[in-house]
Amino acid sequence: MPSSFGQTLRVTVFGQSHSPAIGCVVEGLPSGIVVDQDALATFMARRAPGQGSWTTPRREEDRPRIVSGLNVHGATCGAPLAAVIENTNTRSGDYANLLKVPRPGHADLTAWVKWHGNQDVPGGGHFSGRLTAPLCVAGGIALQVLAARGVRIGAHLLSVANVQDERFDALDNSPAAQAHLAEQLDTLSAGPRYPTIDADAGTRMLAAIDEARRSLDSVGGVIECVACGMPAGAGSPMFDGIENMLARAAFGIPAVKGIEFGRGFEVARLHGSENNDPYEMRDGVPTPKTNNAGGILGGITTGAPVLFRIAMKPTSSIAREQDSVDLESGTNAKLSVHGRHDPCVATRAVPVAEAVCALVLLDALLSYPAE
Amino acid sequence: MPSSFGQTLRVTVFGQSHSPAIGCVVEGLPSGIVVDQDALATFMARRAPGQGSWTTPRREEDRPRIVSGLNVHGATCGAPLAAVIENTNTRSGDYANLLKVPRPGHADLTAWVKWHGNQDVPGGGHFSGRLTAPLCVAGGIALQVLAARGVRIGAHLLSVANVQDERFDALDNSPAAQAHLAEQLDTLSAGPRYPTIDADAGTRMLAAIDEARRSLDSVGGVIECVACGMPAGAGSPMFDGIENMLARAAFGIPAVKGIEFGRGFEVARLHGSENNDPYEMRDGVPTPKTNNAGGILGGITTGAPVLFRIAMKPTSSIAREQDSVDLESGTNAKLSVHGRHDPCVATRAVPVAEAVCALVLLDALLSYPAE
Amino acid sequence: MPSSFGQTLRVTVFGQSHSPAIGCVVEGLPSGIVVDQDALATFMARRAPGQGSWTTPRREEDRPRIVSGLNVHGATCGAPLAAVIENTNTRSGDYANLLKVPRPGHADLTAWVKWHGNQDVPGGGHFSGRLTAPLCVAGGIALQVLAARGVRIGAHLLSVANVQDERFDALDNSPAAQAHLAEQLDTLSAGPRYPTIDADAGTRMLAAIDEARRSLDSVGGVIECVACGMPAGAGSPMFDGIENMLARAAFGIPAVKGIEFGRGFEVARLHGSENNDPYEMRDGVPTPKTNNAGGILGGITTGAPVLFRIAMKPTSSIAREQDSVDLESGTNAKLSVHGRHDPCVATRAVPVAEAVCALVLLDALLSYPAE
Amino acid sequence: MPSSFGQTLRVTVFGQSHSPAIGCVVEGLPSGIVVDQDALATFMARRAPGQGSWTTPRREEDRPRIVSGLNVHGATCGAPLAAVIENTNTRSGDYANLLKVPRPGHADLTAWVKWHGNQDVPGGGHFSGRLTAPLCVAGGIALQVLAARGVRIGAHLLSVANVQDERFDALDNSPAAQAHLAEQLDTLSAGPRYPTIDADAGTRMLAAIDEARRSLDSVGGVIECVACGMPAGAGSPMFDGIENMLARAAFGIPAVKGIEFGRGFEVARLHGSENNDPYEMRDGVPTPKTNNAGGILGGITTGAPVLFRIAMKPTSSIAREQDSVDLESGTNAKLSVHGRHDPCVATRAVPVAEAVCALVLLDALLSYPAE
Repeated sequence: MPSSFGQTLRVTVFGQSHSPAIGCVVEGLPSGIVVDQDALATFMARRAPGQGSWTTPRREEDRPRIVSGLNVHGATCGAPLAAVIENTNTRSGDYANLLKVPRPGHADLTAWVKWHGNQDVPGGGHFSGRLTAPLCVAGGIALQVLAARGVRIGAHLLSVANVQDERFDALDNSPAAQAHLAEQLDTLSAGPRYPTIDADAGTRMLAAIDEARRSLDSVGGVIECVACGMPAGAGSPMFDGIENMLARAAFGIPAVKGIEFGRGFEVARLHGSENNDPYEMRDGVPTPKTNNAGGILGGITTGAPVLFRIAMKPTSSIAREQDSVDLESGTNAKLSVHGRHDPCVATRAVPVAEAVCALVLLDALLSYPAE
Repeated sequence: MPSSFGQTLRVTVFGQSHSPAIGCVVEGLPSGIVVDQDALATFMARRAPGQGSWTTPRREEDRPRIVSGLNVHGATCGAPLAAVIENTNTRSGDYANLLKVPRPGHADLTAWVKWHGNQDVPGGGHFSGRLTAPLCVAGGIALQVLAARGVRIGAHLLSVANVQDERFDALDNSPAAQAHLAEQLDTLSAGPRYPTIDADAGTRMLAAIDEARRSLDSVGGVIECVACGMPAGAGSPMFDGIENMLARAAFGIPAVKGIEFGRGFEVARLHGSENNDPYEMRDGVPTPKTNNAGGILGGITTGAPVLFRIAMKPTSSIAREQDSVDLESGTNAKLSVHGRHDPCVATRAVPVAEAVCALVLLDALLSYPAE
Repeated sequence: MPSSFGQTLRVTVFGQSHSPAIGCVVEGLPSGIVVDQDALATFMARRAPGQGSWTTPRREEDRPRIVSGLNVHGATCGAPLAAVIENTNTRSGDYANLLKVPRPGHADLTAWVKWHGNQDVPGGGHFSGRLTAPLCVAGGIALQVLAARGVRIGAHLLSVANVQDERFDALDNSPAAQAHLAEQLDTLSAGPRYPTIDADAGTRMLAAIDEARRSLDSVGGVIECVACGMPAGAGSPMFDGIENMLARAAFGIPAVKGIEFGRGFEVARLHGSENNDPYEMRDGVPTPKTNNAGGILGGITTGAPVLFRIAMKPTSSIAREQDSVDLESGTNAKLSVHGRHDPCVATRAVPVAEAVCALVLLDALLSYPAE
Repeated sequence: MPSSFGQTLRVTVFGQSHSPAIGCVVEGLPSGIVVDQDALATFMARRAPGQGSWTTPRREEDRPRIVSGLNVHGATCGAPLAAVIENTNTRSGDYANLLKVPRPGHADLTAWVKWHGNQDVPGGGHFSGRLTAPLCVAGGIALQVLAARGVRIGAHLLSVANVQDERFDALDNSPAAQAHLAEQLDTLSAGPRYPTIDADAGTRMLAAIDEARRSLDSVGGVIECVACGMPAGAGSPMFDGIENMLARAAFGIPAVKGIEFGRGFEVARLHGSENNDPYEMRDGVPTPKTNNAGGILGGITTGAPVLFRIAMKPTSSIAREQDSVDLESGTNAKLSVHGRHDPCVATRAVPVAEAVCALVLLDALLSYPAE
């Protein structure tokens, strides 16, 4: 079904940008897990709007209310966990004109065609980036479960426009690289900050975003995400591999237009002798010395860090005038989108990438525990 | 399940490189479709080994035997269509050493971990590129169904190593670009040929592949695939969109490490004003003037060509000596892979990309016909 | 996943008897359907507790709040419809003893084993009959969609203990029988009443229930459900047939221990010449003259009424002392269940059977519209 | 999908009665299981036609060829196991008339409507009882896996027409009853025999079947199936419980019209104090003293035998003249079905019930191993 994914751990997301509430249902969580609601709130805050000059001024509490799935001790009880977030701060008036003039780059037109005009228009309806909030509730809980199993996930903004952050040191798999990668993750999780490893790169990204905003425009970016500590042997061949499942879920984040693993698109220019990761015995365990594969071979984890990058397009809603059409009169029309929009959706999507990664990897761990 | 995908049209692939047979089951095909077995054989031939100097000398008939799913008139009858391809030409001896020394870059090690040593080793087992043959049977039939509905799919090798073919003219959506794209597809389907639009680029790719082979090495490449004629409104929001489903299926092709749609990773460097596709009324239909979105917005088709690219890593099996481990003795080991391997798997994967594209798009058309 | 069912129309139910809220998510509803909330409330009222002497005195509003899935006109918009019902009236104290002494006939013990003691105990947790409320929200909406397509569904209590209601006149398929069946359905839907066709049978059932209550005991019953107006050709062969899907869903109603279609178990004693439904042309349409098949052949509708019966066991929670065990001390124990329990769960399950029937049949209509 | 079922262990069945071949694909089998092909052949023989006067004279080898899923040691390797059975003995001429005159009680008419006349008519196509052969291949392997885990499954003909076999002693759960049940299973598996516990009942059933044949008619029957040794805690709440999944799969056996668990429909007439199974500590384990629940509470196993009964209708194809219609001319018509048909399909369905039971229970064991 369109709004759900996962095999053993299944997440269903519901809501529209301006519906009374949004939320999620998570089926298949292991029982007996006490949800740390403070940690969850901290994680959610990273996605929340209104953090700084780079985000939309729309402010919402985004406080999820967990209405089922916990027992009297606050631990998961085997039943589906459902969380509801009220939509308290909506300004549908901003969207009045959009009812008939679809925004270029947005799903307005395709939803109109698919649902014969019955789609919920204001705020993008079910296509809104706001729907990533319940995804982060589910993912935030999955992150806690994974952390207890020794899996650590982190993401950062690798680029915005032409500004680059330093890369995760995850294409190498030497002990030194592993230690360096752990430091990079420590840096990212040290506190509320713009999500780059190199703070200076973050400053320059913010400048690029601000410049776009001032020119009534927007910019895209690339998010890089890594998961350390995944045991070897998780995942599946062919169509249920880690890459398949991560890709399927990641394209559920609005604005994602590409995904690559390990060396990614670069592999197309390499020779096998450069791209293959040779093995060595390390503490009695066969271990890849490098990690061009991004931790996955044949859809199954190698034990090296799972590494992927997603390309985010620039925010579709821009104030600059664009060509569109009037669906009522069937004529050409002009459109300038007003309202509150992030000029760079990639920034707030960083924790969403972590959430999606956590959900997919936990599902893989739960789906094939005993084969 | 790992070896199947699709919602309304479901494909299950079975077999190992050296099992008695391989094959597929296709559930959900519309009834009443007469399968053109000659056209299917022609399509299969594009994937078959032994076509030229660039492929493995292993020769197989790859002639699928359709054992169920057709009625007495040779038309689909509503029951699952099953096809079986016998494995007649296997040389398991080549793989004896691989039983204990996993090939870097291959799934040998991850399968060994996942299945506790029970995996079928010879030829890569279920992970073998040979499993793309039944995928092409299913996809070849889907291509026929789509053609009858006005959808035309084609793919080519966009690059091998550093050699580039010309791009599909599909990022524009003007009538002129559409006509040019149709010509490009005509060129590709004109007859048996190396799968480039520009024949000269093909010649240079073959040279690069040959050079890799002579240095006991291999090379990667990028495949670009396009589907013209998809009606607007197919697909779904969030996790069942065209991008999600194409990505999930495409990573089922061995060696794929990245996928991107429309402008792809390039969008991360663009402004919204550059990336958004403005609309205009064309013959009474709201139509995007450009196609940076690759024919998909919010997971749903816009009516413009669906366009994606996949990155294929260089063949993992290379004759050059590599570091590996001996799983029996638990010591480091050296490995040189002999046997018959394409030095560039991307070449033969071109029709496989078309097959996967056809299966996913037909599923989308069948899944949401009447909403 | 355990708490969801359906292919194109998918229902996910969440909540526990005493969790903050319960609810459902319905994916795949056709767009453009204005939900009649008054009709939905009337339908829900038939399942609600506190209607008379035969039900539990626990009173709840059971007023569902639809928090997503509707557009600004109150019509379905293509996005998942989610409904939330607050749990306002809970008395967990009643269940204190049950935390360690499982009730015979209930899921207390099996849930304790499955979830290692983490299950939510009070009120039966996720296993509570209370979870049929959100099922009725989803089913109540499906009933409205089906009614607009000419499908009418009704159910009644065929028996309680040894008291029998008259049967639906649905094993015949003559025009006279069809007219009589319509009258029976009219009688049942004429207003708030005990759910029997024959009012006198209802009076005697109530007496039997009351007698059971006075002896600190409970009684079982059989529910009969019929759907008129289903077009021929809906459903699927083998494992996705109407019978398969109705059975799977019906066993999700707590206390169901058997299901049968058409003549049901009686067919085991019949000859083929008695059980086969002969055909005749009627208004140009091949039509079964009788309906021993219950409207389904090979999993696919015949056009005759879909007819099934489900056996409901007597309420497990009884005040009479029973043998059980103390899970903490690991010794034998005695248990008398106090609290508010219907002595006959079959009564309130009548609309639930209709809800389940509606959801399954609507899914069948939506899943295979165009084959 | 219609022709497949299962979550972690998924079976897909393909073929038509008279297609070149039939078969199955089984995904998700644990790896490392050496399939005992002799035991499988013995199991298949119980379903095979041509065993005696009570079955169809159509003789087929029904020898499955396992074409994938095994490694070089004959053990499951993690890849899908596919088995193919050739259709060597077909007499489509028998069915010529049926192309236009649908058999009452069969799926001929409903398939014609659903697939617009494209269905494969001869022998019932995909609806044929012959499709239970590949189901038995899959189930026969599942039985072997379960036996190695201490689960024993057996079924018998509880009744044919009005002749009754003795019941499984499985509604009690005392040690004495358990021993008696084991003896009953020993009797049934002692060698090739008509599938009753009481040999005399078998003789009388054969007489009833023979009488039906002589009157150009057929008879129905009830199959009772039991699984001993299932650990407590397997299964799931609500819609994925053991009852739900067994019911869904069992209605995939052609001619099944009802299913009940434990006391079944009888519970509707019982009081709670009669139907509840009280607990006692037995060897430190909370154990139900009786087993009216058929080994399942809340969809989850109690540790007592899983017990169910299915009602099989009389064979639809009878030689006696019946009323039908001519689909070409659109007029009423008469039909007498010639050809080779069992007058009692229940007999050969006994091992099919065991197969289905094994597949569902193994899936339950594999799906929720670690919650």
